[in-house]
Amino acid sequence: MTNLNVPGLGSFADVAAYMDGVGDAARSASRALARASTHAKNLALSRMAAAIRRDAGLLAAANAEDVAAARATGNDAAFVDRLALTSTSIEAMARGLEEIAVLPDPVGEISDLKYRPSGIQVGMMRVPLGVIAIIYESRPNVTADAAGLCLKAGNATILRGGSEAMRSNQAIARCVHEGLRDVGLPETAVQVVATADRAAVGHLIADEKHVDVIVPRGGKSLIERIARDARVPVIKHLDGVCHVYIDAQAELQSAIRIADNAKTQRYAPCNTMETLLVHADIAPRVLPPLASIYAAKGVEMRGCERSRALVPAMKAATESDWYAEYLAPIIAIRIVDSLDLAIDHIARYGSQHTDAIVTDSHPNAMRFLREVDSSSVMVNASTRFADGFEYGLGAEIGISTNKLHARGPVGLEGLTSRKWIVLGTGQIRN
Amino acid sequence: MTNLNVPGLGSFADVAAYMDGVGDAARSASRALARASTHAKNLALSRMAAAIRRDAGLLAAANAEDVAAARATGNDAAFVDRLALTSTSIEAMARGLEEIAVLPDPVGEISDLKYRPSGIQVGMMRVPLGVIAIIYESRPNVTADAAGLCLKAGNATILRGGSEAMRSNQAIARCVHEGLRDVGLPETAVQVVATADRAAVGHLIADEKHVDVIVPRGGKSLIERIARDARVPVIKHLDGVCHVYIDAQAELQSAIRIADNAKTQRYAPCNTMETLLVHADIAPRVLPPLASIYAAKGVEMRGCERSRALVPAMKAATESDWYAEYLAPIIAIRIVDSLDLAIDHIARYGSQHTDAIVTDSHPNAMRFLREVDSSSVMVNASTRFADGFEYGLGAEIGISTNKLHARGPVGLEGLTSRKWIVLGTGQIRN
Repeated sequence: MTNLNVPGLGSFADVAAYMDGVGDAARSASRALARASTHAKNLALSRMAAAIRRDAGLLAAANAEDVAAARATGNDAAFVDRLALTSTSIEAMARGLEEIAVLPDPVGEISDLKYRPSGIQVGMMRVPLGVIAIIYESRPNVTADAAGLCLKAGNATILRGGSEAMRSNQAIARCVHEGLRDVGLPETAVQVVATADRAAVGHLIADEKHVDVIVPRGGKSLIERIARDARVPVIKHLDGVCHVYIDAQAELQSAIRIADNAKTQRYAPCNTMETLLVHADIAPRVLPPLASIYAAKGVEMRGCERSRALVPAMKAATESDWYAEYLAPIIAIRIVDSLDLAIDHIARYGSQHTDAIVTDSHPNAMRFLREVDSSSVMVNASTRFADGFEYGLGAEIGISTNKLHARGPVGLEGLTSRKWIVLGTGQIRN
Repeated sequence: MTNLNVPGLGSFADVAAYMDGVGDAARSASRALARASTHAKNLALSRMAAAIRRDAGLLAAANAEDVAAARATGNDAAFVDRLALTSTSIEAMARGLEEIAVLPDPVGEISDLKYRPSGIQVGMMRVPLGVIAIIYESRPNVTADAAGLCLKAGNATILRGGSEAMRSNQAIARCVHEGLRDVGLPETAVQVVATADRAAVGHLIADEKHVDVIVPRGGKSLIERIARDARVPVIKHLDGVCHVYIDAQAELQSAIRIADNAKTQRYAPCNTMETLLVHADIAPRVLPPLASIYAAKGVEMRGCERSRALVPAMKAATESDWYAEYLAPIIAIRIVDSLDLAIDHIARYGSQHTDAIVTDSHPNAMRFLREVDSSSVMVNASTRFADGFEYGLGAEIGISTNKLHARGPVGLEGLTSRKWIVLGTGQIRN
């Protein structure tokens, strides 16, 4: 990645000094944001949305330049598709900001305030994380979505999008800044990094002084690279090798409907099922009708030997299929002899993202819920529900596969922390 | 640090292979622990306590060898003091385990279960983190305390104490293992690393496959080194540069009592005040009587020019005093002209640990609570209350200065995470 010659953007002689300045400004803005009123934050979000609607033509024009440049440098259609803004996607950005405005403000929420024997009251207050850096690829709508969510949670944001979308991102940033300015919040609350030099990313992810958390949005290789090199905590989203386990005591039609939906409703999302586990007792009744559905939808089935005995059209699964995140119309299928073996399979091959059991057995449902160590564990529902909107978070910045801090879909609450508060009346410790 | 020739312990030709084996065993034990009943965990804790009491003589003998070796290699009295077990500290270990047994079990707690428009119920379940590695120095009681807390929270533990305490730690581990064995839990749920090779620490902190979180317990240099090199998340405890701010509207006697207690009740703890900020309007009434108290207790005062005008006995504070964590009978004192300047001072020089305001002004108290970004923020109480026992956590594994995950005193809850659970009745996504 080299510097682009974008008018008004720079090629920076000293990226480290530039990024230090960005970091200082973000840290300083984060203090203003942390004490900003809910009203000011919501009004800023509405003004940003209005500016985006008003400037839809300007945004489209800036985006057209990015798209033309991407085509000229030979990027493929899928790449250009992710980069392109349409009038629909511009309107969706504006509406997304308005939807964030109506979400409850998590900042300042006090909980669990209790008297202690010493006479002090101890509780917790929800507070912003401080400065969040978002590192993302192509899709320019992330600029508005991520800035909006971080702002509502009281955080300053440093946005580092792909160089291919820099004109689009800067145009969106102008609308975001107008909204901030209108309500008297510092424009530096949301900064879009204005250099394509990749040293900027290296600086950000190591900048423990200025950055509290990194949220990478993009392909797995981007996220792995950032997680490997970061000194700052990363809210990361890696594999989604999701399972549906059909228990011996499953209701047949429900099992087929869920296994169909979890695989075929959409193939690309991380919460789509990749491996189906079926109890041996129910497999002869489940697999043949399910295989007909998959076959009709063009889903390639790769099964264990026992599955293939029931559905001869299946290909043979190899060890690597159990680890695979296909993100495609392919499914791995395995027959297991017990709930324990299903849980063992998920522990060994899964990615701790989203796993579901279909069963009418209460003890089996409870054991699955407790013993499967994934960010979302489901009973009698499609894995496709693992999503911030479906969970009622309003919007999500991503799905975390971390165990610490936020696990699963990350909404406003995942962009905050809690501190202890103590209310006394002059108490001292003896 | 070189290998000790301790009978029954080893010098390991291949530390990495040995640590991989420890990690595999811990990961496997963590699954058994995650599903262990509250009754089994509590019974194991009681049995460990009983074994420690019964074997008090053996523990004292093993410890005496460690102490003799530490003396022989010329360690100072403070070092030997931290290493030495007494009958009182052995009894305290046993009682500590029994106190953990009576705490509520956080694992499996379901909260916030709500119906969504799709018909699914979405909520959260508290779950263990998995495998926790504790890296600590000298004090052998950490072996029992940390193992007990991690066990109650459903986690497997890898304990890596100082080589100087290895005989003591192994003796305590035998009691811990007896308790686990007695209730049918795997002994590998708590493993004490049996090599003094420091490559073991390097391996642990990079072992993302086997270790979910590192908790270092010890001096700042140990923690900084681990935090710098770790690939695994670290719950770390760095500086405690704590402030008390006496507001213009403080009640005089309360202010003096809190400022005295926060500094002098004990000098070494991290929650002891290091810098006192006093509003200019009240300083002439607060500082002279407070200075008399400090002087009588032998506390060295280092003040700004205006403070020194009120208390001529004060030395002049330099810029570095505002950053200092003395952990000693020394205090830095500064007069400020407003609440804003007090908050600015804390933001600039503080370490986000524990800060308190003394005031009768409700708006000032609320602003301080909201705007000071520290893990504990207090109104009209001594900073010395920032402690797991005082907060009602029952026991603490440490005080975290992280912003993500656990902030402030870390008890059982800080050793767990929450996953999403979904309860459906056959729902699929449209």
